Amino acid sequence: MEMGSDEKVGLMRKGFEWVKKWVKGLVAKLVEVRSKAIALGKDDPRRVIHSLKLGLALTIVSILYYYNPLYANFGVSAMWAVMTVVVVFEFSVGATLRKGLNRTFATLFAGALGAGAHYLAALSGHVGQPIITSIFVFLLACILTFMRFVPSIKAKYDYGMMIGILTFALVSISGIQDDEVVLLFEKRISTIFLGVCVCVLISISISPVWAGQDLHNRIALNIENLAIFLEGYGSVECLKSLQDEQFTQEYKSILKSSGIEETLYNSARWEPGHGCFQFRHPWNQYLKIGALTSQCAFRIDALCRNLSSSNIQVSQKIQTEIQETCMEMSMESGKALRQLVSSIRELTQPTQAQIYTQNSKSAAKRLKTSLRSSHFWEDCDFLTLVPAATVGLLLIDVVECTEKISEAVQELASLAHFKSGKAEPMQIEKEKVQPNIGVSFVTIPISSV
Amino acid sequence: MEMGSDEKVGLMRKGFEWVKKWVKGLVAKLVEVRSKAIALGKDDPRRVIHSLKLGLALTIVSILYYYNPLYANFGVSAMWAVMTVVVVFEFSVGATLRKGLNRTFATLFAGALGAGAHYLAALSGHVGQPIITSIFVFLLACILTFMRFVPSIKAKYDYGMMIGILTFALVSISGIQDDEVVLLFEKRISTIFLGVCVCVLISISISPVWAGQDLHNRIALNIENLAIFLEGYGSVECLKSLQDEQFTQEYKSILKSSGIEETLYNSARWEPGHGCFQFRHPWNQYLKIGALTSQCAFRIDALCRNLSSSNIQVSQKIQTEIQETCMEMSMESGKALRQLVSSIRELTQPTQAQIYTQNSKSAAKRLKTSLRSSHFWEDCDFLTLVPAATVGLLLIDVVECTEKISEAVQELASLAHFKSGKAEPMQIEKEKVQPNIGVSFVTIPISSV
Repeated sequence: MEMGSDEKVGLMRKGFEWVKKWVKGLVAKLVEVRSKAIALGKDDPRRVIHSLKLGLALTIVSILYYYNPLYANFGVSAMWAVMTVVVVFEFSVGATLRKGLNRTFATLFAGALGAGAHYLAALSGHVGQPIITSIFVFLLACILTFMRFVPSIKAKYDYGMMIGILTFALVSISGIQDDEVVLLFEKRISTIFLGVCVCVLISISISPVWAGQDLHNRIALNIENLAIFLEGYGSVECLKSLQDEQFTQEYKSILKSSGIEETLYNSARWEPGHGCFQFRHPWNQYLKIGALTSQCAFRIDALCRNLSSSNIQVSQKIQTEIQETCMEMSMESGKALRQLVSSIRELTQPTQAQIYTQNSKSAAKRLKTSLRSSHFWEDCDFLTLVPAATVGLLLIDVVECTEKISEAVQELASLAHFKSGKAEPMQIEKEKVQPNIGVSFVTIPISSV
Repeated sequence: MEMGSDEKVGLMRKGFEWVKKWVKGLVAKLVEVRSKAIALGKDDPRRVIHSLKLGLALTIVSILYYYNPLYANFGVSAMWAVMTVVVVFEFSVGATLRKGLNRTFATLFAGALGAGAHYLAALSGHVGQPIITSIFVFLLACILTFMRFVPSIKAKYDYGMMIGILTFALVSISGIQDDEVVLLFEKRISTIFLGVCVCVLISISISPVWAGQDLHNRIALNIENLAIFLEGYGSVECLKSLQDEQFTQEYKSILKSSGIEETLYNSARWEPGHGCFQFRHPWNQYLKIGALTSQCAFRIDALCRNLSSSNIQVSQKIQTEIQETCMEMSMESGKALRQLVSSIRELTQPTQAQIYTQNSKSAAKRLKTSLRSSHFWEDCDFLTLVPAATVGLLLIDVVECTEKISEAVQELASLAHFKSGKAEPMQIEKEKVQPNIGVSFVTIPISSV
C-alpha cells in the first residue's frame, strides 16, 4: 500500500511537472508572439490602422442585420454586404478600388447576362431548362476561365472574371428553383454596392494608404540606397575590400525587392488624383526606373564580389591614375542620384543632377583613356594593375547605369510636369557634401549638357 | 428637293461606310483575339483543359439545384457549393488543395467560434446582443487581419484567415435574426465540403497539373539554359563579341522569372506524393537552386555586357593563354550543368557532374595562375590584355556559381534519395560532345573530389 501511495505521489508530481512545463512553454510562446506582433506593427504602423479600419467597416455593414427595418428590406442578402467588405477591403486605396469596381461591374454584367440566360432557358420547359442552363454555365465558365490566362486581363480584371463566373452561375442556376430571380439579384447588387461604398469611403477617409504614394516613395528610397553606396564608396580607398563597411548593406535590399513595384503599380493605376499626383500620373515610368535601379544594384553587387575576391595592392601609380578617378566617378554619380532623389521627393525638375552626371561621365572617360594609353602601362606592376583596372571597368558599368536612371527620372519629370526647381548655386552643394575628400571637380557648363 | 435627296443619299452612303468600317474593325479584332487565344492555348494546352475542368466541376455541383430531393435538403445553401468551386478551383492540384483545405478548416473553426459567440451574446438579452456581437466581430476581424501581415502565415494560410473572418461574422451576426444558427451552419459546411471534394477530385483525376512537377521541370530547364549558353560560349572564339549568336538568348529568360518558383513552391508543399515525388519531397531545396541559377544568369549577363562593350584583339599569346582556357572552363562547366540537368530529369545521382566541375575548376585555377605570373605579363600588348583578363575574371565568377549550383543539386539528390545513376564510361561522353574543339581534358580521379 505504501508503494502504491508513493507511486501516486510520483505520478502526480510528474503530471504537475508536465503541466508546469507546458504552461511555461505556452507563456514563452505568447511572449514571443507578442514581441513579434509589436515588431510587425512598429515596422509599419499602417498595418494596425488597416486592421482597425477593416473591423470598423465590418461593424458598419453589420447594422443591416441589427436594424430591423433594414433587415426587413434586404433579408439574407445582407450577407453579401458582409462578404464584400471582407473580400474587397485591401491595404491600399488602389487595390480596394480595383477589387470593388471589379466586383460591382462583374456582378452587374454577369447578373444581367444570367437573368437573360434564365429566361431563355425557361422557354424550353421544365425538362429542357436544366440542360440549357447547364450548357450556358459550362460555356461561360470555360470562356472566362480561359480569359483569366491572358496576361493583360489577369493584371487588371482577374477578380472581375471570377466574380463574373460566380454571379452568372448563381443567378441562372438559382432561377430554376426560384422564379424571383430579378428581385433577388436587385437585392444582391444593392448590398454589394453598399459594401463596396463602405470599403472605399473608409479606405479613403481614415488615414488612406495610397499605392501610388508608396510606389513614389519606394523608387526614391531605392535610388537613395544606390546613392548611399556610391557616395560611401567614393569616400573610402575604393580599391580595398569593403566587407565591414556600413554602406554596402543598403543596396542589397534592392536585389530582393523585384515584384513589389509591379504590385504597387497595378494598384496605383486605379487610384484617383491624390496629394501631388494627378489621376493619369505616369506610373508606368516608375516601373522603368525600378528596373534600372535593380539593374544598377546587380552591377554594384558584381563590383563588390570582385573587390572581396581580389586583394589589390595600391601602388603610387594606381593611387593617382585609377583610385582617385574611381573615387571621383563614384562620388559624382552618387551626388547625381542624391539630386534625383530630392527632385523626386520634392517633385521638381532634376536640373542639377545633369551637372554631376556629366562630371562622372568625364571622369569615366579619363579612366578609359588612361587605361588605353601605352604611357600608363610602361614599367608598372601588372599583377596589381589588372584587378585594379577590372574594378575600374566594373565601376564604369555602374556609372553608365546611373546615367540611364538619370535620363529615366528626367523623362518622368517632364511626363508628370514636375515644377522647375530653384537654381541653387553649385558652390554651396559642393561644400555641403563630404568636404574631407580632395576630389577635383570637373565642372562643365550646363549649356553643353 | 433634288439637293435634299442627294444629301440623304450622301448621308446614307456615309452611314453605310461607317457601318462597313466598324464591321471590318470588329472582324479584324475578332480574328486577332482568336489567333491570340489559339497561341495562348498552344503555348500550354493545359490551360484549355483547366477551363473545361472548371466548367465540369461547376456543372456537377449545380445538380444540387436541379435535383429536387437534394434541393429540398440543402436549399439556398447549395449556393455555397457553387461559390466554393469557382473560388477554390485553381490551375494546379497543390493550389486547389491549399485553398480547399484552408476554406474547409477555416469555415469549421470560425463557424464553431461564431456559434459560441452567438450563444454568449444571446445571454445578454435583446438590447445587449448586437453590442456584444459587434465587439466580438470587431476584435476577431482586427486580430485575423493583422495576422495576415505575418509573412509565414501569409504564405500558407492567407486565404484561411480571410474565410475565418467571413464565417465568424456571418454566423455570429446572422444569429441575431435567425435562431437556427447551428442548422444553417451545418448545411453550409457540408455544401462547402462537397464543393471542395468535387474540385480536388476533378483536379486530381482529369489530367492533373502538379505544381511540384512544374517546379522540378522549371529548375531543370533553367539549368539547361545556362548549360546551352556555356557550351555555346565554349565552342566559339569566346573573347569576340557575341551579339548575333543564338545561344545568348536562352539565359535571358531566367533573368525575368524570379517569383514564379516561389509561387510553385507554395503550392507544391500542399501536394500529396505524385509521380516520382514523395509527400515530403525537399521542395525548399528547389528554391535554393533557383536562386543560384538566377544569380548565375546575372553574372553571365555582366560577362555579355562586358564583351559587347569592349573590342578585344586576340593576339597569339592571348589566344593560347587566355582564350583556350576560357573556352575549356566554359565548356566543362556547361557539360557539368548538362549532367546535372539529366540527373534531375532522370532522378539519379549526379556523379559525373563532379568530374566536369573539377575540370573547369582546375582550368580556372590555371587561368588565375597565368594571370598572376610575371612571366605572362612580359613583352605583351597590355591594351588588349586588360579587357581579355577582365573577361577571364568574369568567367571565373560564372564558373564559381556553377559549382555552387552543382553542390546544391547534389544536396537535393541526397535529400530526395535519388537513385544512383549508371556509371557510363567517361570516354564515350568525351567523344559525344563537340569533337571540333581541341581542349585538353584534365581528368581528375573522383576520389580526390
